[in-house]
Amino acid sequence: MKNFMHSIPTRIAFGKGQIKKLKEMARTGKKVLLVYGGGSIKKTGIYDQAMEIMNENKMEVFELSGVEPNPRIESVRKGVDICKSNGIEMVLAIGGGSVIDCAKVIAGGAVYDGDPWDLVINPGKIKGALPIYTVLTLAATGSEMDKFAVISDMNKNEKWGTGSRFFVPALSVCDPEYTYSVSARQTAAGTADMMSHVLENYFTNVQGADLQARFCEGVLKTCIKYGPAAIMEPNNYDARANLMWASSNAINGMLSEGADVAWCVHPMEHELSAFYDITHGEGLAILTPHWMEYVLDEKTVDKFAEYGVNVWDLDKNEDPMTIAKKAIECTKDFFVNDLKIPATLREVGITDEKNFEVMAEKAAAQCANAYVPLGKEDVIAIYKAAL
Amino acid sequence: MKNFMHSIPTRIAFGKGQIKKLKEMARTGKKVLLVYGGGSIKKTGIYDQAMEIMNENKMEVFELSGVEPNPRIESVRKGVDICKSNGIEMVLAIGGGSVIDCAKVIAGGAVYDGDPWDLVINPGKIKGALPIYTVLTLAATGSEMDKFAVISDMNKNEKWGTGSRFFVPALSVCDPEYTYSVSARQTAAGTADMMSHVLENYFTNVQGADLQARFCEGVLKTCIKYGPAAIMEPNNYDARANLMWASSNAINGMLSEGADVAWCVHPMEHELSAFYDITHGEGLAILTPHWMEYVLDEKTVDKFAEYGVNVWDLDKNEDPMTIAKKAIECTKDFFVNDLKIPATLREVGITDEKNFEVMAEKAAAQCANAYVPLGKEDVIAIYKAAL
Repeated sequence: MKNFMHSIPTRIAFGKGQIKKLKEMARTGKKVLLVYGGGSIKKTGIYDQAMEIMNENKMEVFELSGVEPNPRIESVRKGVDICKSNGIEMVLAIGGGSVIDCAKVIAGGAVYDGDPWDLVINPGKIKGALPIYTVLTLAATGSEMDKFAVISDMNKNEKWGTGSRFFVPALSVCDPEYTYSVSARQTAAGTADMMSHVLENYFTNVQGADLQARFCEGVLKTCIKYGPAAIMEPNNYDARANLMWASSNAINGMLSEGADVAWCVHPMEHELSAFYDITHGEGLAILTPHWMEYVLDEKTVDKFAEYGVNVWDLDKNEDPMTIAKKAIECTKDFFVNDLKIPATLREVGITDEKNFEVMAEKAAAQCANAYVPLGKEDVIAIYKAAL
Repeated sequence: MKNFMHSIPTRIAFGKGQIKKLKEMARTGKKVLLVYGGGSIKKTGIYDQAMEIMNENKMEVFELSGVEPNPRIESVRKGVDICKSNGIEMVLAIGGGSVIDCAKVIAGGAVYDGDPWDLVINPGKIKGALPIYTVLTLAATGSEMDKFAVISDMNKNEKWGTGSRFFVPALSVCDPEYTYSVSARQTAAGTADMMSHVLENYFTNVQGADLQARFCEGVLKTCIKYGPAAIMEPNNYDARANLMWASSNAINGMLSEGADVAWCVHPMEHELSAFYDITHGEGLAILTPHWMEYVLDEKTVDKFAEYGVNVWDLDKNEDPMTIAKKAIECTKDFFVNDLKIPATLREVGITDEKNFEVMAEKAAAQCANAYVPLGKEDVIAIYKAAL
């Protein structure tokens, strides 16, 4: 196990009706920027609930709506302008990971003297942020309990992850009922996203990080049970609750600290989203089994066999390579048949290889210290296999 | 899954050499009360390492040594007196759970106007505490990352748990190498203690808390692998590291929030320690299998079977009652044969039933909302079975 510093300062108000905890925001100040997406929070009533609490506490609410999936730097800039022009004291994000990520970089940009894109490409420039509050409406990215944010500049076909301890939310309201209205497709993509967060750390070269591995398996088994359950029964509270708490724990550090390696499927997917604006979780689900097949060999087989036995309940008495291959098949089968996610890039609109060279070059730059280091040609091969 | 508030503000500096992080204490102030036990930290060199850091930071160090296993209120009172007489600004505990628990109540007593025993029997009176720093030297109680403290008044045969958010340490240094010198017996008792913390929550009536259950199983499997390994090879870093990180996570809220029920084996054991001053972890290991046998019935069998399959790798195709009974046998066998903990109360010096009535009455008062509620007669039956 490696050395680590553990610190998860976000307070989580988990469960039915916990939005009432937003009244704590009044301790931070009066002026809040409310950040949200396409308006579904008005249909579901969450907007009204939050406004009522803020009005009761005599807060002055400014709004930035229309934050995109794969949130754009243009939205961040708009939010930063509102903050700087109005002396905003805190940011409240109501939405999924895209909205929260956007709100984080706005919070950082509000106290930064320059273009917020600097904070995306150079996390070292993040020296502070307004306090961040969130109300989660989609279980997926874990942004509600971590320090990360991913922002795109579609003009440049760029999508980058950034992060800072200042981006860790102060308080996140996680009410599983708020995800009842999440579509089957988004539920599936969210489940795939959190499973990918786990798998990026589960497959590690670090020896002896058993507890982390067992926690990873716990999150994966929970996703495997409850992802399909939430799709079948959108109002199944326990399904939504388990997915929501799994999403937070998949990426808050619990599973990776002491065991971490560089991620590689995420960087590969970020290029797909940056060039083709596809749904992040779908891109991950498409790439993951091909990445697994590509890196499976005599050196990695034992880890894949462990995955097969402990996550997919495969027979531990079989030969490790057989278990490993079955485990990859289970993974693919789960994404395609249980979550109904497309199996190929072609099905999400990526029909030729023309950008693979440039995408692979950018992705590979982040994969040098991965579980199995990948170069540009490796990434191209994985893209091609997924086509 | 139940509603919950999650907040684990303790920062953990985990790994080799992390004691250097104690220099952060200088931000809190100058005057520190160093709390420790019987002097083993001088032999191992941890005392000198800590003193060097504090001296470098020009801190003024006061000392309270000699804190007992099952720490006494008398030690707390001594510590409180030192704090009040010298304007102490923070407490540093170097030791295991007993030392840390003692330091927590000292930290609370230092800002309380009255006898600190009040804070033990009435947690509501804890309205603040000095900042608490810890250096962990024994993986067991999880006190390094939680809000709890257990203090005894042997004059009254009383041992009570208390807790407060003010008792959560600010920073805990968890260096697995510091536990190399822990004896086989204490390693075993510590492993049993953390397993009991997990089992108290794993056996819950709350439905649908799957993620919590999977995390519980992960901690249990880690203890089962690494408890005996650390006993066989005291200097096995990964064994010590996994046990140390398991101990913190067993009781910091991760496994219980959303799934919690009242504990019952701990209250039963606290009476044993209060009357006979036995080692807490040994008492838990002796009682646990008898508690399991006592509460196993048609209503609880499925949970025990789940435990058998997921923790002890038993054949899921067998009849649930068979699996459940085998799981209890595995538990007993592990404590007795792998951890070498005595199997009976008699072996730890409790040879007759004369105090069982009064002990059972006190324990049962805390078991009314347990997984299977226990009355006085139930507790007596479990004590007798364990005799």
